[in-house]
Amino acid sequence: MNDKVNLAAKLAHVASYWSPHTVGQFNGCDLMVVKVKGEFVRHQHDETDDFFLVLSGELTLRLPEREIVLRPGELYVVPRGVEHQPFAAVETELLLIEPSGTPNTGDARTAAPRRLL
Amino acid sequence: MNDKVNLAAKLAHVASYWSPHTVGQFNGCDLMVVKVKGEFVRHQHDETDDFFLVLSGELTLRLPEREIVLRPGELYVVPRGVEHQPFAAVETELLLIEPSGTPNTGDARTAAPRRLL
Repeated sequence: MNDKVNLAAKLAHVASYWSPHTVGQFNGCDLMVVKVKGEFVRHQHDETDDFFLVLSGELTLRLPEREIVLRPGELYVVPRGVEHQPFAAVETELLLIEPSGTPNTGDARTAAPRRLL
Repeated sequence: MNDKVNLAAKLAHVASYWSPHTVGQFNGCDLMVVKVKGEFVRHQHDETDDFFLVLSGELTLRLPEREIVLRPGELYVVPRGVEHQPFAAVETELLLIEPSGTPNTGDARTAAPRRLL
């Protein structure tokens, strides 16, 4: 990545929901933007913490015992091994950071491919 | 970190410039907010890439051959080993992500202490 990343400009190219697009890398992690709406599969990552920063909209993370509701400018890290189900009532834009190669569903067989943007 | 992080609320507690405050951790990295104004020391990190996301204001990263100007919603990763000098003409708020323990000046002897917030 030689140039700066304008997150809104990158997101303008994303047409589908729940499809993370890699916009950069650092220290072995992928920086990804994603648009979401509706309910994602309940899953967990056994080896990696999961970073969510809301850029627009509103994201609910359904954890085993509670819900975390994130609005623009708010972030949450789901610790490794903790089951979570992302949900968005309205179209929501996120910055995600995960170690490169982490399957978005927690399972390589069902994960969305990583697309470069 | 058990709760969500509201970046603006965290930054409201930061009184001094160039003093990173850790607001969370994930995958061996610190998530930090910082307020900056003026010119920081020119430095480099030999082992780690350096993530900058501008939340408010405007940040210039002076690199060896060029300058990167970041506005809110824009990020840049300074690759490891590349000298850089951050500069902000106006008060600017940033999200920084670095492997835990990385000295902010590139030199443990001159680095600001990591403060938890």
